[in-house]
Amino acid sequence: MATASQTAPTIDVYRDLARQLRADSIRCSTAAGSGHPTSSLSAADLMAVLLASHLRYDWSKPKDPANDHLIFSKGHASPLYYALLRAAGAIDDAELMTFRKLGSRLEGHPTPVLPWTDVATGSLGQGLPIAVGEALAAKRPLNAPFHVWTLTGDSELAEGSIWEGLDHAGHEGLSNFTAIFDINRLGQRGPTELEWNVDAYAARVRAFGCDPIVIDGHDLAAIDDALGRARRAARPTVIVAKTIKGKGVSFIEDKEGWHGKALDPEQAKQALAELGATASRTFATIKPDPWAPKPFPPAKPPQLATYTEPLATRKAYGEALAALGAARGDVVVLDAEVSNSTHAEDFKKTAADRFFEMYIAEQQMVAAAVGMQVLGLVPFASTFAAFLTRAYDFIRMAAISRANLRLSGSHAGVSIGEDGPSQMALEDLAMMRAVHGSTVLYPCDANQTARLVALMADLEGISYIRTTREKTPILYTDRLEDFRVGGSRIVRGGGADDAVAVIAAGITVHEAIKAADRLKDAVKVRVIDAYSVKPIDADALVDAVQTTGGLILVVEDHWPEGGLGDAVLASLAESGVAGELVRFVHLAVREMPHSGKPAELLHAAGIDADHIADAVKDLAG
Amino acid sequence: MATASQTAPTIDVYRDLARQLRADSIRCSTAAGSGHPTSSLSAADLMAVLLASHLRYDWSKPKDPANDHLIFSKGHASPLYYALLRAAGAIDDAELMTFRKLGSRLEGHPTPVLPWTDVATGSLGQGLPIAVGEALAAKRPLNAPFHVWTLTGDSELAEGSIWEGLDHAGHEGLSNFTAIFDINRLGQRGPTELEWNVDAYAARVRAFGCDPIVIDGHDLAAIDDALGRARRAARPTVIVAKTIKGKGVSFIEDKEGWHGKALDPEQAKQALAELGATASRTFATIKPDPWAPKPFPPAKPPQLATYTEPLATRKAYGEALAALGAARGDVVVLDAEVSNSTHAEDFKKTAADRFFEMYIAEQQMVAAAVGMQVLGLVPFASTFAAFLTRAYDFIRMAAISRANLRLSGSHAGVSIGEDGPSQMALEDLAMMRAVHGSTVLYPCDANQTARLVALMADLEGISYIRTTREKTPILYTDRLEDFRVGGSRIVRGGGADDAVAVIAAGITVHEAIKAADRLKDAVKVRVIDAYSVKPIDADALVDAVQTTGGLILVVEDHWPEGGLGDAVLASLAESGVAGELVRFVHLAVREMPHSGKPAELLHAAGIDADHIADAVKDLAG
Repeated sequence: MATASQTAPTIDVYRDLARQLRADSIRCSTAAGSGHPTSSLSAADLMAVLLASHLRYDWSKPKDPANDHLIFSKGHASPLYYALLRAAGAIDDAELMTFRKLGSRLEGHPTPVLPWTDVATGSLGQGLPIAVGEALAAKRPLNAPFHVWTLTGDSELAEGSIWEGLDHAGHEGLSNFTAIFDINRLGQRGPTELEWNVDAYAARVRAFGCDPIVIDGHDLAAIDDALGRARRAARPTVIVAKTIKGKGVSFIEDKEGWHGKALDPEQAKQALAELGATASRTFATIKPDPWAPKPFPPAKPPQLATYTEPLATRKAYGEALAALGAARGDVVVLDAEVSNSTHAEDFKKTAADRFFEMYIAEQQMVAAAVGMQVLGLVPFASTFAAFLTRAYDFIRMAAISRANLRLSGSHAGVSIGEDGPSQMALEDLAMMRAVHGSTVLYPCDANQTARLVALMADLEGISYIRTTREKTPILYTDRLEDFRVGGSRIVRGGGADDAVAVIAAGITVHEAIKAADRLKDAVKVRVIDAYSVKPIDADALVDAVQTTGGLILVVEDHWPEGGLGDAVLASLAESGVAGELVRFVHLAVREMPHSGKPAELLHAAGIDADHIADAVKDLAG
Repeated sequence: MATASQTAPTIDVYRDLARQLRADSIRCSTAAGSGHPTSSLSAADLMAVLLASHLRYDWSKPKDPANDHLIFSKGHASPLYYALLRAAGAIDDAELMTFRKLGSRLEGHPTPVLPWTDVATGSLGQGLPIAVGEALAAKRPLNAPFHVWTLTGDSELAEGSIWEGLDHAGHEGLSNFTAIFDINRLGQRGPTELEWNVDAYAARVRAFGCDPIVIDGHDLAAIDDALGRARRAARPTVIVAKTIKGKGVSFIEDKEGWHGKALDPEQAKQALAELGATASRTFATIKPDPWAPKPFPPAKPPQLATYTEPLATRKAYGEALAALGAARGDVVVLDAEVSNSTHAEDFKKTAADRFFEMYIAEQQMVAAAVGMQVLGLVPFASTFAAFLTRAYDFIRMAAISRANLRLSGSHAGVSIGEDGPSQMALEDLAMMRAVHGSTVLYPCDANQTARLVALMADLEGISYIRTTREKTPILYTDRLEDFRVGGSRIVRGGGADDAVAVIAAGITVHEAIKAADRLKDAVKVRVIDAYSVKPIDADALVDAVQTTGGLILVVEDHWPEGGLGDAVLASLAESGVAGELVRFVHLAVREMPHSGKPAELLHAAGIDADHIADAVKDLAG
């Protein structure tokens, strides 16, 4: 490997490398029998020059913090990406040829199973916004010297998320960010909207606050010049490269019907002959200058408040974030222009340099958080729970990226009141439970919230906390250190003679308590606060079933599908005690809510103390 | 009411109307004790001129097809919207004052509970894309003369979906579309990114293919001129109006901390005095010239194919769409640039004028479909099931809009094979079950698919069909007319001596059959094809439990949460037979999948015939 100050390679080296990237893209996809060789060929020249002369990366140390970052937003060009790894000497030819086979690290679309791969791509329009997050974190708080590069296709430029990303890159003046648009004119099923209108793309880039450089994406000298300018620029840059899909192999160049299709062995042979392919080799690449981030100050235990007066859990979330921010330097917070509602603003007051205003762009918010955790930061991202649905594809992909990501959704359920159904999350528990490896938390009081937020900082995978708009009474003043992922708490009853168990979480815990207290002379009610919806406290549920002889009521401020009710049943079934259920009553939101006061809406939805009490009496009688 | 040809109102009328809109926005929100008066005041002048002189709408006939359409993309400006309805005489003052109260039609954000309201708004960045869909449908196939207007806030211009919308408006040359940007500088928690940089907005609009007109949004003559030019323009137009939040009331003008906050009664009194408010009255508005769409040719029953050879259900979906397209004129199809994968392209071949290429913009695709169904069309929208997650917020809101919408997601589950997890929908059943009033279908063979697609055309609410990439054998050649929403089919066993019931859907039906056939001499297995996941066939499930003595296995190509397993348990619990479950085994995808061949991946996930057979033996033994 060379250092950054080494003499630049010649155009001949670029040409040889580009030829090899093309040949290897064809070879591995033909061996796999599927993949996207033509989308790889269009960008081969761009990536050859990037690898040989501009990307500063120590391929033997993928976790070196000084390394540049490269995200293939067009993840389907994975043959090219893997060919790049092979040319850099990161993988060998034998591994290259395992592409798309069971057990290979070289999946159909890149994933972080490979140590050189920051994040999973393959859902278009996500790599660029994630790269923006990396560049943002590099600018602050890390003050890192590396450059962030991302390669996008042209079809994905129809995704609004791309423009959210460039908007933020421009607004934040991310000079360490370069996107390379591979404008090869053809999408999966035919021409793109703008085809080869590179000027139209350039105008969009400019309007969104970034500087475009329009080039012929097969002119090696022009590419070299553009990449150099982009790295040196004081502004975020987008290289708008006019390219030809399938470039280099005459019979697939600019042809429709060749997306996502491997060449057959005979075609591949012909293509390799036309390219003049020779045996693949490792090319010289450039290491970064040594750099390491300033170590964070030693983490201290967060000084969490202990509350005694009613407080909204969203407010407790904000205050706990602020405590975390004061206690450790790696925590960063992102919010989608509602930080005075989610109370993420409390963190901003403590650690303004680690607070990121993402404006009303939930997709970009989650993408940026994913990018930040790649760099070792501990992101929390918050908005109204209802609006996290906007970013579901990004959350799904974050799980495939093996991201450690913390999400907070406020204003859950009908209990928000007058704002009406558009602002009420009623599907967020279902959505977040169905994320691989996720943790789903739903606290009911401020003290519990604070402790769960603190736990989230050290959780792996995607964790989610659902908070409530309205103030709720304080339930917990003791054993606050016992709250845990997978836990629950019995808040009424708990004896061996409990007749009915009510399982609730968040706002409905308080309604269940009211019902239990109202019935206390008539029915012995056990109320379980199932604040950990996933994983749920299976032992507590089994005990509830067995103690009550199978009389269970679940009450939740959520649609009936996919939330607490489903979680309880699935757990009981898995524990093998579903058969001991004598009656199971599920109170949930079953009609479209309207506006009204919180208490009116809880009542109208049939999930308040009145309905719980009636149902419990019915169960017990 | 006046006709379009009447003499234009004077500036004095505009001023009086604007004053009333401001006063009524304040009055109703103060009475409610919440709401967004300042966001209403910034747009009052814009809406006054629109209502008095440009919007052609018969307020006594909200369903008149000749009416213009007006969507408040900034749904939180609902006080202004309702004040507009009052000024038009659509509602009276007494109703206006019910704003945000339980039982009122005037919800916190507008919903189609009101007959004049096309769709629910309140999740920002959605109204404009839906308006694009209306304009698109008006252009073709309806060839309608009306104009589509939409009012957006400036905060929501950070949402990528806005730019997807304008991109499509520009690409399709929608001269019948006008967006009005209310650039009041202040978002919920402070200044927007671009504040009053109206030229920056104009550049973005222009770059995305629409024509901007920049005006002072409080200059009544300029507004009048701009709206007139927008209506007459040959291109889609965006009026970029520089406004002042809280305009007209000195103590809230351009002030932070006044978003989403009603004036208290004393402040309101002062504000009304400052405005010089008088008693509210009804203003003259303009009716449209009479017009009715050309009636669709009489609908015929679709000529659905009957298949005998293995076929992918996605292909059967496309062919059924084509048959529907030939049989009825109201069916329209939208696809996100993957119509050769979803096979929506088959419809395009039959009815090209009713096929809409939405490129890779899933949010815009769903939004456009929502807009089209407002106009009485019957939209089907398709992409990879995994990528419908991109549009979840739009789907959630479509349910609040009471939209009749049909979605198709192809390439579900690990069975897609080599492309890897980014392309595998493993959360779509959870996501779609948790949509209010939804129908979720998951067919396993081509004949069943065709019949379910035909049924979807007449379903109310949001319906979803999940299709499979791989070819699957034909299971059904008889009683094809019996497939129904809420149905199921026993495909193995069915006698009173069945020992174990396997409940499957889609691809796993075939695996379950293989397992049952393999075990046929050892265990009597009932295999239920639960093709209707929501609503699920409760009777069939009860019978399965009771016949087998409670030995149930569910197998699905989905994460364990929120899918078929949860649906089955919830149904059994609701039917009161969960207690008869002796053992419940749930085979689902529990580890992150990689690339591989479909059969390898079904095996690796533990959901193929081998695993089913082992689990059945274990259950039976």
